[in-house]
Amino acid sequence: MRIAIDAMGGDNAPAAVVEGAVLAAREYQVEALLVGQQEIVKENLREYDLGEAKLEVIPASQIILMDESPTEALRRKKDSSIAVAARLLKSGDADAMVSAGNSAAALAITRSFLGKLKGLARPAIAAIIPNATDVTILLDVGANAGGCRPEHLLQFAIMGEVYAKDVMGKESPRVGLLSVGEEESKGSPVTLSAFPLLVQSSINFVGNVEGEDIVNGATDVVVCDGFVGNAILKFAEGVAEMIFDLMKAELDRSKSAKLGMLLARRALQNFRKRVDYAEYGGAPLLGINGVCIIGHGKSNANAIKNAVRVASEFVSHRVNEHIEQNLRKTQD
Amino acid sequence: MRIAIDAMGGDNAPAAVVEGAVLAAREYQVEALLVGQQEIVKENLREYDLGEAKLEVIPASQIILMDESPTEALRRKKDSSIAVAARLLKSGDADAMVSAGNSAAALAITRSFLGKLKGLARPAIAAIIPNATDVTILLDVGANAGGCRPEHLLQFAIMGEVYAKDVMGKESPRVGLLSVGEEESKGSPVTLSAFPLLVQSSINFVGNVEGEDIVNGATDVVVCDGFVGNAILKFAEGVAEMIFDLMKAELDRSKSAKLGMLLARRALQNFRKRVDYAEYGGAPLLGINGVCIIGHGKSNANAIKNAVRVASEFVSHRVNEHIEQNLRKTQD
Repeated sequence: MRIAIDAMGGDNAPAAVVEGAVLAAREYQVEALLVGQQEIVKENLREYDLGEAKLEVIPASQIILMDESPTEALRRKKDSSIAVAARLLKSGDADAMVSAGNSAAALAITRSFLGKLKGLARPAIAAIIPNATDVTILLDVGANAGGCRPEHLLQFAIMGEVYAKDVMGKESPRVGLLSVGEEESKGSPVTLSAFPLLVQSSINFVGNVEGEDIVNGATDVVVCDGFVGNAILKFAEGVAEMIFDLMKAELDRSKSAKLGMLLARRALQNFRKRVDYAEYGGAPLLGINGVCIIGHGKSNANAIKNAVRVASEFVSHRVNEHIEQNLRKTQD
Repeated sequence: MRIAIDAMGGDNAPAAVVEGAVLAAREYQVEALLVGQQEIVKENLREYDLGEAKLEVIPASQIILMDESPTEALRRKKDSSIAVAARLLKSGDADAMVSAGNSAAALAITRSFLGKLKGLARPAIAAIIPNATDVTILLDVGANAGGCRPEHLLQFAIMGEVYAKDVMGKESPRVGLLSVGEEESKGSPVTLSAFPLLVQSSINFVGNVEGEDIVNGATDVVVCDGFVGNAILKFAEGVAEMIFDLMKAELDRSKSAKLGMLLARRALQNFRKRVDYAEYGGAPLLGINGVCIIGHGKSNANAIKNAVRVASEFVSHRVNEHIEQNLRKTQD
């Protein structure tokens, strides 16, 4: 399997991306196609003994910045690393792509080059959120900036369910509709109309869920409008950072606590790993007629490696084929 | 000043509420009117030496349950503790009320009995969220279940600003509009239209903010639709619980960490206090023609005491008068 990897995307590119690609090519049955500025990528690659690992560098002269407008990037940067990777997908020269770069640009470009899955109205970005016992898939977290209709939420549920089954290995994923109360009568006009659509579907729909159900382990998939999901995802990142900062400051302040901290450090590190996005391999773009996994902007080598693994599982489990099948079933 | 306190509201009522009322009556210049089932409340009161503290029990025979429909509660339970407290406000026998009970019912009842502030379209519930350096006021967190229009968001901003000034003592509160990107061009149809209204207002508007800005100390007030705010608030509660649970489990697992934990405990407790809702005294209902502070359902005595303090500050700083003045200014 050939995975195109955006070597120029993310805060730690290209070094961390190249390292992650090398780790993935060594560990998994994949051929890594590092897409980016040839000289720099090759220079980074020289640090590694590749052995049997299969890596290739595919030239792309331009870089899309993290805060660049996706429509501008799509129109003007024809030779960006994301655009070249997406073209590899389109031509069949790659089976999937991974980028830790500008996610809105990756969405716009893959959507433009590859189109949407048959029967789908709107793609979605799914985030993998660690919960008390495992992880929850939250979607959409930003492919749509509001204005989702009830039938879009139903399709998000279908895509999330397939992903949870195929990639996360959940047998009968519990799907919840994010709302402001558990009762069927609670919600916005859109969620109130989405509710019966979800009840009528073949999905294992557990009804309305609330914010805490994203993290308490009560659901496997939570669907919501992209505006809400994006706000929650970014809030979660902010909260995690704040809690660690506050805790560190508090521990630094007291001497006995400092001693305790030394002893507790390993435990805290283990815990931190538990809530570390890098372990979960990035957010899949769902609904694109192709496979694209978005890594966190702060991706380190391990995060890139895991994103490559997730991309390869996405392909081998034929997630997109199953999504199209289930979309068709709903429309019958 | 006379504060009506819903003795029957909240998971720990009436014991914790009675204790909190006693603490408040001792500590602040307020007269506490404990509203609820007379026998039980009086029995709880007997445990305390009241000394100079002014407390009175006002009978109310019914209790509104936490998950009861607010419209049903409004229609059927004419003698509930919340309804009786709201009537005390209306008659002028109380200056403010505090309830840790069903917040939707408190909103419906106070709104029905007392009406809205002059010029206001929709009331809002404001949550006080601890951030990296202080607190952020997030509104609306659930008075409206979606469907807020741009002019509603502007009015939320006006109310949040006045509250931040008058009660939180912030001189020129920074007000942000929750969106999916900082650029003016990013957002939902509603936030895109709200943006220019906020720019044109006299508010210290810092522009679009994202989820993480609720907790990183970048803003004092963040406005959003009630659906989004409610999801974020409940998510925050879920995350806080998950993180403490995970950390505890992790620390329990390792022996050296356990020793460290004993030493670090005081630091952790201080930290926990920092992110403890009880310190911030509950969520004000903004836009009601009267003063009502909603305590968290899990309120302990300290949370009730602080809610009473916040209620008295709300009254003495004439928050509602200032909101009406600012609403009028915007409409000129």
